[in-house]
Amino acid sequence: MRQGRMPEQRVRVAVDAMGGDHAPAEIVAGAVAAARDHGLEIVLVGKEPEVRRLLTIHGVDGQVEVVPADQEVRMHEGALSAWRRTRSSVAIGCELVRSGQAQALVSAGSTSAVVAAATRRLGTAPGVLRPAIAVILPTRPSPMVLLDVGATADPSPAMLVQFALLGTAYAGATLGVADPRVGLLSIGAEPEKGNRLARRAHAHLAAAPVRFVGNVEGGDLLAGAADVVVTDGFTGNVVLKSLEGALRFAVTEIRDALTAHPVARLAALPHRGRLRRLASRFDPDTYGGAALLGLSQTVVIVHGAARARAVTNACLLARDLAGTGVVTQPLAELRPAAGQDPPDT
Amino acid sequence: MRQGRMPEQRVRVAVDAMGGDHAPAEIVAGAVAAARDHGLEIVLVGKEPEVRRLLTIHGVDGQVEVVPADQEVRMHEGALSAWRRTRSSVAIGCELVRSGQAQALVSAGSTSAVVAAATRRLGTAPGVLRPAIAVILPTRPSPMVLLDVGATADPSPAMLVQFALLGTAYAGATLGVADPRVGLLSIGAEPEKGNRLARRAHAHLAAAPVRFVGNVEGGDLLAGAADVVVTDGFTGNVVLKSLEGALRFAVTEIRDALTAHPVARLAALPHRGRLRRLASRFDPDTYGGAALLGLSQTVVIVHGAARARAVTNACLLARDLAGTGVVTQPLAELRPAAGQDPPDT
Repeated sequence: MRQGRMPEQRVRVAVDAMGGDHAPAEIVAGAVAAARDHGLEIVLVGKEPEVRRLLTIHGVDGQVEVVPADQEVRMHEGALSAWRRTRSSVAIGCELVRSGQAQALVSAGSTSAVVAAATRRLGTAPGVLRPAIAVILPTRPSPMVLLDVGATADPSPAMLVQFALLGTAYAGATLGVADPRVGLLSIGAEPEKGNRLARRAHAHLAAAPVRFVGNVEGGDLLAGAADVVVTDGFTGNVVLKSLEGALRFAVTEIRDALTAHPVARLAALPHRGRLRRLASRFDPDTYGGAALLGLSQTVVIVHGAARARAVTNACLLARDLAGTGVVTQPLAELRPAAGQDPPDT
Repeated sequence: MRQGRMPEQRVRVAVDAMGGDHAPAEIVAGAVAAARDHGLEIVLVGKEPEVRRLLTIHGVDGQVEVVPADQEVRMHEGALSAWRRTRSSVAIGCELVRSGQAQALVSAGSTSAVVAAATRRLGTAPGVLRPAIAVILPTRPSPMVLLDVGATADPSPAMLVQFALLGTAYAGATLGVADPRVGLLSIGAEPEKGNRLARRAHAHLAAAPVRFVGNVEGGDLLAGAADVVVTDGFTGNVVLKSLEGALRFAVTEIRDALTAHPVARLAALPHRGRLRRLASRFDPDTYGGAALLGLSQTVVIVHGAARARAVTNACLLARDLAGTGVVTQPLAELRPAAGQDPPDT
């Protein structure tokens, strides 16, 4: 049995303290909360003096381990910087995971830099061509897995099929869906609608051992048309950020509309809590961590603007994923993880 | 001076009565409203007995011209069907425009079929490689042009540059923006972020005679980061439908939240009108028509689920666009339309 499968195994989570728009303060705060409030074993990787100073402020200096990394990859930097800077916090975080000193890495750094560093240093799981980033969207009636939202901008049709397998296993493990319906994001219901990639992927998916339900359109994403929606990392990233932006926009507009006039403001008072909860459901800080699927080790990516709460949630996700090993399975083992016999092999 | 430029010229709008999920009833109702309430000269193209029956119901038989077309292209059909069926309503509608019997075509039919028929029968404007569909999104503080939302799924970087020119002219003419800021939809602010197409298009756009402000991300779309946002027809279509879906979803969720409990329901009463107005602002029926830019004649595409109101709005847009000729200008004439001397030529 593979190590990562044993839930009773102790999981240490390495956290890239220097990645993110609000690093290191919010990252350290989130990691400290994960350790203190949830009992996680955390290793903070970053510029030691800064990180230690923050730990002292939180009153936990000496209680959370720090591994020094004297370089960082800034938010606007990409893959090249991540490869070159071998002493960056993200590179050293990967090395901790590779060497077994930690079982998962959490980073809010530049997505392309984290993906590049993790892919190079940890490698893909056996059989996997390229990794994919999966988010769980809080849709109704049940949540939905969307991938890839930014790891592989120009995948081949074969890679999209692998994303469907990875997403199926992920939905099974995290959402408990036994035989998740897989949709392909496209611009029409018919197989021949779409760009070149989507049309070719449709044909491949129809023959793949997943429960393929065909194309889904942008308007179906929040309408529960599928449990797993597969797309390339470019479209997925643009769509995810568009959805987040649209929901943020709607909540703001509604709040403004509800409080535009004194009488309306009074009438709106009982609704404040409801609006706040709704806004928070679509706040990326709530669902926070996105799993980097298809690598040989567990990596959780947090959005760049992450605050402490998102980092804490990402640490919890990383612990759970490392415990089950679902995101790091070899491709050949993925199908049974969906809880079903493969329809064909 | 080109014919189309003279606003005083009488504009006849051909309406494809058979295209759309609710054709012909809603299409005819919308066209009749355009004629009766707004004084437009309308030509309905479709199955004559059905269309005449509907005109009789509206009490305007004999007052709105009907041109018979005994074939139709169904909503799930694409380019091939549009090419083959020469007696389809969309094909005959195009022919009316080509021969000068009408000055614009409005269709809610299958987008790929309308684009294919219009491109083949009307041709692109001089210098234009491929057409693009542009929508005006009701963003704050000012509206925004998004293109392409579905005409050209796999454009080249050079085509994206042309879309930027077309969008600049369109924003100038319809929104009155003198020197619109053009953004490229991508997955990071830096030029090297994006898929192959976006990275190459970024370099081309930086050298093009438009006011290029760089990449914009999905989350910036509704935040007023640019006046014109350029993308390929696949991403644009997925994003447009995602935005519409997200806003529909938010309004439903908020309505549910506001009326979940009796007390809340009572307090929500004063807000009903506001919610309805907000919902309606993001209802595609309100902004309705999307201009097919870059053809030698005016074509307005309405979304497939269009009701009468959307069709009426599309007819009004078609009349205005045909009157100014802005969507059919040769590429070489597009730059001055932005209200600025080209920065380089």
